[in-house]
Amino acid sequence: MDRPHLFPSLPSKVHTDGDFSPDETRLANRNHGILLETLRHDVTPAGMHYLLTHFDVPYVPDPETWTLNFGGQVQTPHALSLADIRALPQRTLRVTLECAGNGRSFGSPRWPSMPWGDCAVGTSEWTGTALKPLLARAGVLPSARDLVFTGADRGFDGVEHDYARSLTPAAALTGAQSDDILLVTAMNGQPLLPQHGAPLRLVMPGWYGMASVKWLTRIDAIDHAFAGHQQTGTYVYKQTSDDPGTPVTAIRVKSLMVPPGLPDWYTRKRAVTAGPVKVHGRAWSGNGVPIRRVEFACDGVWQDATLEAQASSPYAWRGWSCMWDAVRGEHNLQCRATDANGCVQPVEQRWDRNGFGNNMAQRVPVLVR
Amino acid sequence: MDRPHLFPSLPSKVHTDGDFSPDETRLANRNHGILLETLRHDVTPAGMHYLLTHFDVPYVPDPETWTLNFGGQVQTPHALSLADIRALPQRTLRVTLECAGNGRSFGSPRWPSMPWGDCAVGTSEWTGTALKPLLARAGVLPSARDLVFTGADRGFDGVEHDYARSLTPAAALTGAQSDDILLVTAMNGQPLLPQHGAPLRLVMPGWYGMASVKWLTRIDAIDHAFAGHQQTGTYVYKQTSDDPGTPVTAIRVKSLMVPPGLPDWYTRKRAVTAGPVKVHGRAWSGNGVPIRRVEFACDGVWQDATLEAQASSPYAWRGWSCMWDAVRGEHNLQCRATDANGCVQPVEQRWDRNGFGNNMAQRVPVLVR
Repeated sequence: MDRPHLFPSLPSKVHTDGDFSPDETRLANRNHGILLETLRHDVTPAGMHYLLTHFDVPYVPDPETWTLNFGGQVQTPHALSLADIRALPQRTLRVTLECAGNGRSFGSPRWPSMPWGDCAVGTSEWTGTALKPLLARAGVLPSARDLVFTGADRGFDGVEHDYARSLTPAAALTGAQSDDILLVTAMNGQPLLPQHGAPLRLVMPGWYGMASVKWLTRIDAIDHAFAGHQQTGTYVYKQTSDDPGTPVTAIRVKSLMVPPGLPDWYTRKRAVTAGPVKVHGRAWSGNGVPIRRVEFACDGVWQDATLEAQASSPYAWRGWSCMWDAVRGEHNLQCRATDANGCVQPVEQRWDRNGFGNNMAQRVPVLVR
Repeated sequence: MDRPHLFPSLPSKVHTDGDFSPDETRLANRNHGILLETLRHDVTPAGMHYLLTHFDVPYVPDPETWTLNFGGQVQTPHALSLADIRALPQRTLRVTLECAGNGRSFGSPRWPSMPWGDCAVGTSEWTGTALKPLLARAGVLPSARDLVFTGADRGFDGVEHDYARSLTPAAALTGAQSDDILLVTAMNGQPLLPQHGAPLRLVMPGWYGMASVKWLTRIDAIDHAFAGHQQTGTYVYKQTSDDPGTPVTAIRVKSLMVPPGLPDWYTRKRAVTAGPVKVHGRAWSGNGVPIRRVEFACDGVWQDATLEAQASSPYAWRGWSCMWDAVRGEHNLQCRATDANGCVQPVEQRWDRNGFGNNMAQRVPVLVR
């Protein structure tokens, strides 16, 4: 597989299976997931939420000079300061975000990108103001075909560009989640952290994380389909390189367990003491669709887990637990969720050329002693 | 190189050069460093401080039941609650911590462990109470040979053990830094985060991070030299496998720059616009020894950087900057610091069998356009 590079004279080694290239491992150092044991927390502690930074975290020494510009196909182009935005009605919404590339490292061949294991997920209390009234105030014209959200982060991925993503006016103004799209300035009751988009970001609940543009500087209504790199050059489901593909949007149903027992430092394999073990986990789906069932398996024998109460937000993961009678020997544990639409996690890795939307049931090898 | 494993029936692939094994990349996913661009912040934002978790982050649903036990060769064995500790005099100290394995991935052959690049560092405002008065209250007996600090985290690294490290009574009671060793309950003005040792940790300023035991539950004075795995089985400088070695203690002098220009997503290589560029960075050394000089180089031509004022704490990194006249073409940037003891960073990787104490001058390849 090839990948365009800034520096053709310094070609990068590309691996697509088995071992990992220095570039992949550098990305694994740089980007980070949740530690699975911290799934025990209803809300992910600061610093444990997954983080995927395409370019550099912008340095913003004076957030009070930040402006959000509304432009393009709108009746009233204008700019808002951070103070303007904080003076608007505020809401706090608990949202589970997941990286669209979560689970990529289990694919074969593997697309050269961030080699996520299972851990690119997190749940936060996001505080901000609703997007929709601000779009109404700007007056999106009927000629608008896409709304483009642009961040302050800039770099190369083949082409040089500012990070930017679009939503259709329908998704932003009349879609089922349109009331819940937020312009966010705080996370877990604290000012946004620099790496999570300070001082201002979008949160698009129910969709994979690429839609929740960080360091938001502009919202532009444009009269044509947005063809920016982050919209059409990546974040598209493809079976082959010439597949026109389907845009990545809503999160697919998924669940994770806290790996039971004690870990080995280097291999992360687990030792569990024989006897009854309570296994804890979380499950979530996209677009606010509720979780209806979670199953747990030891060596492929499935049993139903007990669901905890759903948080007041439909976009937050749901806790679950399951009693497991651990018997001596080596075993493979799995979990899988089913949502209210009847979507269920597959037990084998889905094929996607770029490694998007993987929701294979988690596998946890353990040694019971 | 071999490494003992919990599961001999599931041997781990060990790489020692070039590409990275799945085990190494899994650790790179799990542990995380600072994003180098966030070196612009005097104090590392929450979640950006490097994090190396040997086992699992303990889940502590009720910190108020936490106790710290003083035992062994002391006059008055006793336990303190978290409330007891918070009622003692509190200090806040800015401390730069670095992982002893920082830079390991640049070594060859490479010890199978966390494959750190440059980024395993961070600076926080740590708030807590001084250790020394509490040791005095317990009454360390003359028979004490070592003080053992034990965390609540447990797992396997060859042998099963609780994470534990020791200090000699001399280091803890009369050493130059002994007044500044803290039992910490807060970080950057907030309660400690779970992954950084909540509700209670040790901070040993001036030493590599392994000494700053997280999730601290016990302090035991013992009448013999402590031989726990984290004290003698690792964190020892060795040239060869049969080298008895030297314990890893103080941080070695080091500096890092914020890589200038714009990054390429996948390779992290940089594009810089020709002309004058202000390069920013940080420099630090161990044991509170001040930084006396930082130099910056383009293609091996060194120039002195300008040092910013030292923070009030001698244990915190020092900012620096340097004007660089960027000329079109491919270049290699470096920086190196010298401390008040005359120690200077080497420009080539030091050899250490386990990859500890690497303080080679950072290398940043750039394309100026």
